[in-house]
Amino acid sequence: MKLIPTNRIESFSDGVIAIIITIMVFDLKVPEISAEKSAWLALSALIPKACSYLISFSMIAIMWVNHHQLFHQIKNTDRTLLWCSIHLLFWMSLVPFSTNFVGTYPFVWQSAFVYGLNFFMCALSFNLLRGYITRSNLLLETISHQGHQKIRQKNKLTLTLFAAGAILSLVSVYISFILFVIVPAMYFIPERIITSQHEVD
Amino acid sequence: MKLIPTNRIESFSDGVIAIIITIMVFDLKVPEISAEKSAWLALSALIPKACSYLISFSMIAIMWVNHHQLFHQIKNTDRTLLWCSIHLLFWMSLVPFSTNFVGTYPFVWQSAFVYGLNFFMCALSFNLLRGYITRSNLLLETISHQGHQKIRQKNKLTLTLFAAGAILSLVSVYISFILFVIVPAMYFIPERIITSQHEVD
Amino acid sequence: MKLIPTNRIESFSDGVIAIIITIMVFDLKVPEISAEKSAWLALSALIPKACSYLISFSMIAIMWVNHHQLFHQIKNTDRTLLWCSIHLLFWMSLVPFSTNFVGTYPFVWQSAFVYGLNFFMCALSFNLLRGYITRSNLLLETISHQGHQKIRQKNKLTLTLFAAGAILSLVSVYISFILFVIVPAMYFIPERIITSQHEVD
Amino acid sequence: MKLIPTNRIESFSDGVIAIIITIMVFDLKVPEISAEKSAWLALSALIPKACSYLISFSMIAIMWVNHHQLFHQIKNTDRTLLWCSIHLLFWMSLVPFSTNFVGTYPFVWQSAFVYGLNFFMCALSFNLLRGYITRSNLLLETISHQGHQKIRQKNKLTLTLFAAGAILSLVSVYISFILFVIVPAMYFIPERIITSQHEVD
Repeated sequence: MKLIPTNRIESFSDGVIAIIITIMVFDLKVPEISAEKSAWLALSALIPKACSYLISFSMIAIMWVNHHQLFHQIKNTDRTLLWCSIHLLFWMSLVPFSTNFVGTYPFVWQSAFVYGLNFFMCALSFNLLRGYITRSNLLLETISHQGHQKIRQKNKLTLTLFAAGAILSLVSVYISFILFVIVPAMYFIPERIITSQHEVD
Repeated sequence: MKLIPTNRIESFSDGVIAIIITIMVFDLKVPEISAEKSAWLALSALIPKACSYLISFSMIAIMWVNHHQLFHQIKNTDRTLLWCSIHLLFWMSLVPFSTNFVGTYPFVWQSAFVYGLNFFMCALSFNLLRGYITRSNLLLETISHQGHQKIRQKNKLTLTLFAAGAILSLVSVYISFILFVIVPAMYFIPERIITSQHEVD
Repeated sequence: MKLIPTNRIESFSDGVIAIIITIMVFDLKVPEISAEKSAWLALSALIPKACSYLISFSMIAIMWVNHHQLFHQIKNTDRTLLWCSIHLLFWMSLVPFSTNFVGTYPFVWQSAFVYGLNFFMCALSFNLLRGYITRSNLLLETISHQGHQKIRQKNKLTLTLFAAGAILSLVSVYISFILFVIVPAMYFIPERIITSQHEVD
Repeated sequence: MKLIPTNRIESFSDGVIAIIITIMVFDLKVPEISAEKSAWLALSALIPKACSYLISFSMIAIMWVNHHQLFHQIKNTDRTLLWCSIHLLFWMSLVPFSTNFVGTYPFVWQSAFVYGLNFFMCALSFNLLRGYITRSNLLLETISHQGHQKIRQKNKLTLTLFAAGAILSLVSVYISFILFVIVPAMYFIPERIITSQHEVD
């Protein structure tokens, strides 16, 4: 049976990710303004939603970038890789829901728990995908093993931070929010700093 | 008149399928939470929707995989093939509606009936597409006839299961749900098992 | 200034059209079911929406097919062609609105008027696009002039039917609906019949 | 680490922009019509939304055209370019929200302020992207420096107009609306007129 070529999986994933990242804005509902004076007040009620939107937008953008970098390092696809990829898209497709949930009820700990769990599952399924690719020797030979190891370490850190963010919502949602902000921030710090940090680890 | 090339139909179908699979999440509305205690209760009310979402996501992913494998086995397109493909997309585009319907009223048998009927029509239009391709000799010569036969048998089984799922909702929606879960599960079982099962048939 | 190549305009248009054709299903809201007995009654209230959905889906699919056939006959693009294409997409992007409007208020003549007007503008902007391409000699030389003339005649018939559908809604919405069904039907009739019909004209 | 090639960034941006431009129609809600006579009245209440829709549609289309022209002039990508591009998409993704906001409350000055600010941020992030490309020598050598300068001047004018539109909403929303209409109009005027205008400046 002929397999779906790498570029097909990529362009389908691109489509799904582009939709996820864009439709989240629809949960930023225009607030009800009764008298003109309360317009800023009404807008300020959107702040939790805007924050969760910004974090989710950044996280999905990061996942898109990583997804592509990974798929450009692959020689060929197989059935398992295909379903690992769809598995990742499944958890990513739930992000608009959990983003809206945490934006609507930022101080209900369950919402921070669901949000953290959702991204934990995204990171986990990304890890499964990467693990399968390494084990099955689907990576191009030109890719340095060391660079790959660094990425895997970063992935494990991400997994830990999201798990901690989900669980610590029981103690305080503020701890969760700080952890949820650290993850995207971690990916924006220039590569060199991250590298040396890993060497310290 | 120049025809639309195969890759154009594929990329348009990809776009439509990517949107269908992603926008379904919008029917997973954030539940109303009045007091903090009832947060899990409110979330648990989403279980039927989450289940129907999971089944539909799996089914559409399977259809996407099969659609691509089919289109990679085609030599050239014609007008009928084009409209067979759009016919399939029409029934697939109704999936978010029937998914939401069965998720909202899981114990109203009509919802299970509509859900089963929708996927029956998807499977039927897929069958029509595949049948037309075989009859019109649009398949590449390199594709083994035997492999093609196996897929057609699996398709017929899918058709039967969805028809049964729709009709048996009159008896009990639980029977329907079991049948609706069997179909995606059937596609995740590794190829070899399915093959031997067919040989037993 | 380098122009946007033909395939870029095509793939962007593909994206927009794929979204338009898919998101319309979101206006097929799951009906409220109070007691189990009224489930069919509730579903039957969706019939006008389902009909308008079916017509719009068919029309947009036809426009997608024609858009592609046209762009495959083009040598190169220019600024005017680009904006003619975006102009067409603008009117197409309003189709979900007018489809929902006529589906919600099928017997309010203004809804049939808006629906007819929307598709009239789509057909008109398609005509403008085709007219510009012919006048500016952007068509490939291999395209027969005669085939092109036939398509233009069909386009004019479409324009007339939608204009009539919009205006005759003042007399009776039923006349409008019949005209709105004729247009997609006209495109599904095999080419030969249409051709001979044109020769009779 | 292998970078994401230019065409991947383009096609992802295309996807996101296609979704943004299309889903805005969903905020054009079908009006409530109680008695047939009030149908035009109900439709006329949509005029502010339709106007904001038209302006936003034009602006996003212009940004799409410019985004492509820019990316066709690029030799290669790097990490910063990638994130500059995602930064632009972030602000563009908020356009459906601010379009809906100004369409719902056209005479509340805060809505015009938010709308102007949103497009100011779009224009600013576009400017940052263009500035980075010039500074980092990522432009193809064949691109005339003079043509590039003209575009940058136009960009600065756009930035100024949106900033003025946002701030002057405090004085009168009508001034803002006039400024918001001038920007897209400016891009539709044939190139030659703009050029001579710049020479006068």
